[in-house]
Amino acid sequence: MLPQGKFPPKVFINGEIHSFEEARISVFDRGFLFGDGIYEVMMQLENGIFYKKAHLDRLQNNLNKIHIAFNVKEVERNLEPLLRASGLVDKSCLIYMQVTRGIAARKHAYPKEATPSVMMYALPYALPKVNPNKMNAILVPDVRWHRCDIKSVSLLGNIMANEAAMNNGADEAALVRDGVITEGSHTNIFFVKDGTVITHPANEHILNGVTRMIVLQLCQELGIPVLERAVTEDEIEQMDEAFFTGTTTQVAAIAKLGNHVYFHGEQVGTVTLRLQQAFGKLRSKETSGLTFETYINPQTI
Amino acid sequence: MLPQGKFPPKVFINGEIHSFEEARISVFDRGFLFGDGIYEVMMQLENGIFYKKAHLDRLQNNLNKIHIAFNVKEVERNLEPLLRASGLVDKSCLIYMQVTRGIAARKHAYPKEATPSVMMYALPYALPKVNPNKMNAILVPDVRWHRCDIKSVSLLGNIMANEAAMNNGADEAALVRDGVITEGSHTNIFFVKDGTVITHPANEHILNGVTRMIVLQLCQELGIPVLERAVTEDEIEQMDEAFFTGTTTQVAAIAKLGNHVYFHGEQVGTVTLRLQQAFGKLRSKETSGLTFETYINPQTI
Repeated sequence: MLPQGKFPPKVFINGEIHSFEEARISVFDRGFLFGDGIYEVMMQLENGIFYKKAHLDRLQNNLNKIHIAFNVKEVERNLEPLLRASGLVDKSCLIYMQVTRGIAARKHAYPKEATPSVMMYALPYALPKVNPNKMNAILVPDVRWHRCDIKSVSLLGNIMANEAAMNNGADEAALVRDGVITEGSHTNIFFVKDGTVITHPANEHILNGVTRMIVLQLCQELGIPVLERAVTEDEIEQMDEAFFTGTTTQVAAIAKLGNHVYFHGEQVGTVTLRLQQAFGKLRSKETSGLTFETYINPQTI
Repeated sequence: MLPQGKFPPKVFINGEIHSFEEARISVFDRGFLFGDGIYEVMMQLENGIFYKKAHLDRLQNNLNKIHIAFNVKEVERNLEPLLRASGLVDKSCLIYMQVTRGIAARKHAYPKEATPSVMMYALPYALPKVNPNKMNAILVPDVRWHRCDIKSVSLLGNIMANEAAMNNGADEAALVRDGVITEGSHTNIFFVKDGTVITHPANEHILNGVTRMIVLQLCQELGIPVLERAVTEDEIEQMDEAFFTGTTTQVAAIAKLGNHVYFHGEQVGTVTLRLQQAFGKLRSKETSGLTFETYINPQTI
């Protein structure tokens, strides 16, 4: 018996589709024993899967980083059967995908003989065109590892930070490493100062979110100057606006960060609002063109 | 079909004993989705489970650290049935135990309604009284998180380091953070200089191994001075001896660390040898007295 909660109707595991109650994996899967796997989350919206290519490219790129020999075409090929079995063809839903190194007798080093395991599911999920939330975020020390660019399932550092936020009645945790704000527990963070959008560079201390990349592209299209540099804890109160981005978070205005209040009530900063509206409009466009390779910028400003 | 390898005969999962081929867990278990669990490894030797109390105390302590509400007495109570079902009563074996936060719909923060999952198995495993290996270790940047005192299954940083060692034909990776040697990828590391044993303090950058604690106690009993301080990368060649410790590693002499050769062929340092012999003798003694609380020393020297 699974507990109550928002479970998906069906789960794809290694070529087979199961009911969620029957969706099981070997305890010798290295995802379970070592957190040795990569995941990805994307949204199917009214015009298809939002930035599918960017998400699948990133999944492939991350698998390559940790040397899991797997071609994401296998995931892509099975999306339609999964959506069909789930009764979610053309419906708004969240698609979760996880690829692990596979099953092997427990030993730290990568097993030679393992076949990667694939698990994915689609979950009914409605997203408004603009995220109406005014986020309240606390500051939490960033104790995560130094390869946050890898979207792995070894997520204990992230969930501990997120739990700290929930426990404090906040919506998200903004992580602070060596005095600078890196990102949220499952989001990226942006600031606005004198009309310029500022965000942490896409290095090994953050996950370069697809929504982060889209927002940077929107800034370019809208003529909003961008600075990819880390914002220090001390600078929080000097900033004019702040917002989080993420696949389900989209572009979410921050009302309060740490002790600093940016906006009260329903107020949202001008630049944040402009980006929220531009982001909302993307949903009616062809949106599959963004590729990971095109938009990643490893250079820091 | 599971791949070839050293799988255990039986696996205990949440009160039931399964064959290893049938040992499965829900893909919604947070161990699989988030690496949200704690594990422990201990050895059953000729006189019973070696330092069982210390291992179970540490398991409990670690579960408490990440707020998984679970009493390890449930694990302890099921050890005997597991060993019996596995045909390993009174036989040399390795006992692996993993407790995760349990099954819940995927969401970062800790679910309120989840029941912790327990998985454990016993694997035939022979350990010599003294580890005969002369270890060759490479130096690998320590990119892990800043809570290495938590023995969690979010182990990607550890396995990447271990893989780097295996890939370079070495036996272990010694991790370097901010210029100091912290520990091995699944071991603790000790140095000897002018008769004094030196090891990294038990803080948030290392896992305070049970064998580490035993070795510190043996030093006290043998009148060997101990300094709990970090050794820098530059000091490696100034040290006289070095060794790794761990539950299956026991006390293992290091022949070569990075580019520095301590010993050639079968040579082992005097202090290392003394500790190896003293450690080997422990197996014929009553060894269940060491408790985690007694031996952890959070103070750094």
